[in-house]
Amino acid sequence: MSKKMRGIGASEGVAVAKALVLKEEQIIIKKHAISDVEAEITKLDNAIVKAVADLNGLKESTLVKLGEEKAAIFEAHKDIAADPAIKEEIETMIKKDHVNAEFAAQTITNNYYEMFAAMEDHYFQERSADIKDVASRIIKHIMGIKIVDLSTISEEVILVAEDLTPSQTAQLDKKFVKGFATNVGGRTSHAAIMARSLEIPAVLALKTITEDVKDGEVFALNGATGEIVLDLSAENIKEYESLAKEFANMKAELSKFKELPSLTKDGAEKLIEANIGSPLDVESVLENGGEGIGLFRSEFLYMDNDHFPTEDEQFESYKKVIDAMNGKLVVIRTLDIGGDKKLSYFEFPHEMNPFLGYRAIRFTLDRKDIFRDQIRALLRASAFGELGIMFPMIATIDEFKNAKAFVEECKAELDKEKIAYDKNVQVGMMVEIPAAAISADKFSKYADFFSIGTNDLIQYSMAADRMSENVTYLYQPTNPSILRLIKMTIEGAHKNNRWVGMCGEMAGDIQALPLLLGMGLDAFSMSATSMLRARSLMSKIEIKEAEELANKALDLETSEEVLALVDEFLAAK
Amino acid sequence: MSKKMRGIGASEGVAVAKALVLKEEQIIIKKHAISDVEAEITKLDNAIVKAVADLNGLKESTLVKLGEEKAAIFEAHKDIAADPAIKEEIETMIKKDHVNAEFAAQTITNNYYEMFAAMEDHYFQERSADIKDVASRIIKHIMGIKIVDLSTISEEVILVAEDLTPSQTAQLDKKFVKGFATNVGGRTSHAAIMARSLEIPAVLALKTITEDVKDGEVFALNGATGEIVLDLSAENIKEYESLAKEFANMKAELSKFKELPSLTKDGAEKLIEANIGSPLDVESVLENGGEGIGLFRSEFLYMDNDHFPTEDEQFESYKKVIDAMNGKLVVIRTLDIGGDKKLSYFEFPHEMNPFLGYRAIRFTLDRKDIFRDQIRALLRASAFGELGIMFPMIATIDEFKNAKAFVEECKAELDKEKIAYDKNVQVGMMVEIPAAAISADKFSKYADFFSIGTNDLIQYSMAADRMSENVTYLYQPTNPSILRLIKMTIEGAHKNNRWVGMCGEMAGDIQALPLLLGMGLDAFSMSATSMLRARSLMSKIEIKEAEELANKALDLETSEEVLALVDEFLAAK
Repeated sequence: MSKKMRGIGASEGVAVAKALVLKEEQIIIKKHAISDVEAEITKLDNAIVKAVADLNGLKESTLVKLGEEKAAIFEAHKDIAADPAIKEEIETMIKKDHVNAEFAAQTITNNYYEMFAAMEDHYFQERSADIKDVASRIIKHIMGIKIVDLSTISEEVILVAEDLTPSQTAQLDKKFVKGFATNVGGRTSHAAIMARSLEIPAVLALKTITEDVKDGEVFALNGATGEIVLDLSAENIKEYESLAKEFANMKAELSKFKELPSLTKDGAEKLIEANIGSPLDVESVLENGGEGIGLFRSEFLYMDNDHFPTEDEQFESYKKVIDAMNGKLVVIRTLDIGGDKKLSYFEFPHEMNPFLGYRAIRFTLDRKDIFRDQIRALLRASAFGELGIMFPMIATIDEFKNAKAFVEECKAELDKEKIAYDKNVQVGMMVEIPAAAISADKFSKYADFFSIGTNDLIQYSMAADRMSENVTYLYQPTNPSILRLIKMTIEGAHKNNRWVGMCGEMAGDIQALPLLLGMGLDAFSMSATSMLRARSLMSKIEIKEAEELANKALDLETSEEVLALVDEFLAAK
Repeated sequence: MSKKMRGIGASEGVAVAKALVLKEEQIIIKKHAISDVEAEITKLDNAIVKAVADLNGLKESTLVKLGEEKAAIFEAHKDIAADPAIKEEIETMIKKDHVNAEFAAQTITNNYYEMFAAMEDHYFQERSADIKDVASRIIKHIMGIKIVDLSTISEEVILVAEDLTPSQTAQLDKKFVKGFATNVGGRTSHAAIMARSLEIPAVLALKTITEDVKDGEVFALNGATGEIVLDLSAENIKEYESLAKEFANMKAELSKFKELPSLTKDGAEKLIEANIGSPLDVESVLENGGEGIGLFRSEFLYMDNDHFPTEDEQFESYKKVIDAMNGKLVVIRTLDIGGDKKLSYFEFPHEMNPFLGYRAIRFTLDRKDIFRDQIRALLRASAFGELGIMFPMIATIDEFKNAKAFVEECKAELDKEKIAYDKNVQVGMMVEIPAAAISADKFSKYADFFSIGTNDLIQYSMAADRMSENVTYLYQPTNPSILRLIKMTIEGAHKNNRWVGMCGEMAGDIQALPLLLGMGLDAFSMSATSMLRARSLMSKIEIKEAEELANKALDLETSEEVLALVDEFLAAK
């Protein structure tokens, strides 16, 4: 009898292959007294040099395979490995306590690890994983332990591990690594993001998969559903082979939609666009037939930096994206910092509930000095194509009016300085706070467009932080209350003839798409890899049937009921 | 020329009197070496004994003047003063470092103060003020510095201070202390709460009032508007005298409404009820003509405790309130713990945004063992009068259904055990999460009643933590988006013939009352001291004009516009 398990499907695709179980070698580090201090310090120095060299290599290969953005991880790792302060602390411990280098290295790096891991902020918590990854590399070099090089895998396997570190994931060659399955992780963990970039099927959060599957055992994995099948029967193998074929067919089918416009079956024109975080992402948008950028998160310019980016630095980035999109609309969201997104060079006030605090437009309206550089950079970039400026976290009409007035102020400055900009640049807003959705009919008098940010809208409407594992069950995109808010937003926009898009995760969700079509959404902005599937599905749906479906859903009571209704609808497509 | 300033009006009433400026004596504590360790320890011991005696006295006088709840503050202070661990740490420092007792006491207590002050949680932050208050008392006793006894004030004054500690406020005699004005504080600070209990007019958060007013100078204070007038002209004095007269007249006028039902001018019947936190509060509810308890916050039974209260302990408390209310409806909210409300004997998971986390019904549905004791206690108490059981933080229909099913389960247990309860006990819910307001028409199929919790509803709908000073400007009860949510809730309730109340601060707000009447609210639950004014105002308003007002307000864009509209309406009353 076959045995099935379910984890979190983190990267689509199916695989049937032998398990390669990476048991995390329990490196036992004993403390022992040493007499030759210099020898220990030399060991440490050599290990650091080797680690930096490794990381340089990883950076280069990642750059070629996955692009600049992913390679940046290893630049950060190099910085950690080469950090003079950490090195000095380890050396001091060796000298003062007369202990072996690996023990000192572990003790000191562990202090850093724990400090970061204890921080409430997800950004810093992630840094703790980086520290652990780098520290383990240095310690192994000190101890002369071979570092398993996953890039040498040369037969088809599914990798099975507790977790995969960023450096491990970057080494995977999808020719041989057909999938991976881990005990921990989630859809937004490093490993998941890498898996999707590499297009390697992955199932995470399986808890005990390293125990459940034996090394060398053939098993099956479905990265879409999160299903794992062990002790495969002939039937299972057949089923998975057919799934694999289906997946390949689907990919071929979808590629046909690259050059087509986004039309419903009855010919209604919609836009399918991409969310991006950096100019580096534009390539993938164009490859996947994106009709625009529905959301460029400008905060990455600020976060991957050691100073507030200057007007000119920002202008260059914005212009790069606008140029590459060649006349297609690019919506750039102004700085959405604060909350869980911090800056290394600016201290935000400590708040008990940062998601309900001083962030995004609340911050920039308060700090016009910082805002001015961005607005001027955006306006200057607008001269080179089609730009939409979008304000995040708008809750009141006054906030929108103030932000818009500030844009006018910057325009007047540019006029005086005789600097070109698009006089008709669109100025819109995110609808991600319940108050904005509820009064959308009023906001649409002033905003040129809306973009519904479902991630935050759901969090606030349900009063549930999706990062808090005790309440994730309340993160329900298809809860009828959420659908009603979306409906109000769309109706409110259309009342004043404004277009309305969506840039939350829900926009790329196949189950949500028929509902959003039925409620009248105009633009769907999602991750680049989801666009073709959305366009394909859209081509099979008529507006009228979608409207009927949405009206039924809006009158239901629970998210489960809505999903059942949609599934029935989709089964017939 | 007179000089006007404005702070936060924290307790109503007006006063014109001499300033008694309490300059916080800058006690300078120098570290010096001591030789007689025993002598220093004796000084410390004596000071602690004196401090405990002081606090005992304060506790007793507060008990008489203000009741058990306020006296409990001094019980807590006694616990701090008599804490053996703190004492031991101070003694150890004296012995080890050979330093003077006051220096050791300050150093050690300051460590505790800073630890608590740095905690993100408001509960613990408040504890830091308690520690400072107690520490200063002990240090003064060590140094032989006279502790100013505010209870000896024997001429009419307005107290002016940086801040008033709980122990200082409790000593005030309203015969002589006509008001107080402080540099810091807010509407919910200790001092503000005490001022309202004592009915002493107070204006807080004046920043520099201790510098602006000279000791002995006559000045005026309006605790309703937050206005302060210095350098009084004859005209000012006349104005304030007339204000004082008005205030006295108003109090007399209001007292007539004690025995009257809550009726609009055209005879529509409403309910004006009170929010309470403990059985001790019931007396004031009855004195002020309350027609029921719209919200009994059961969490105080849990927070003022060192263990989860047993079924019997809870039953006694609930029954006490139900008995005292003598057939009037008592709505008891089930445990609303988590968020900023913690328990000393139970550790909640650490969350980045506790307001969006594991709290209230999310916690109790997860911990049926704890929930069972409460539901059984409530059901048993229901046999003795009119009870409504109310669930907090309901976001989805499933949550309500699950909670209600659990009540049925407990009823079945009681049936089996042949224990009496009211078979028709009402089971309702708070509407404080936007999702619940938006689908109120669905929730009202299952819930017997709603109570709108505006404090949280506003926070979530505006995505703004009112405790975060950078975003308090977004706490706008009369923002049209909030009014629309309230309207949806009321219409949703009435669709299924359910009654709907409100128990947030907005229910007691005079500017909100005409709007709430116009939107059809049935029951208004507020602090006991606000009830008569609400009843008086209600008697002057006709439903039809309130409806017209509300409809206009619902179509406005900003909170300011709504307030202007209401003010115009109220001016004609």
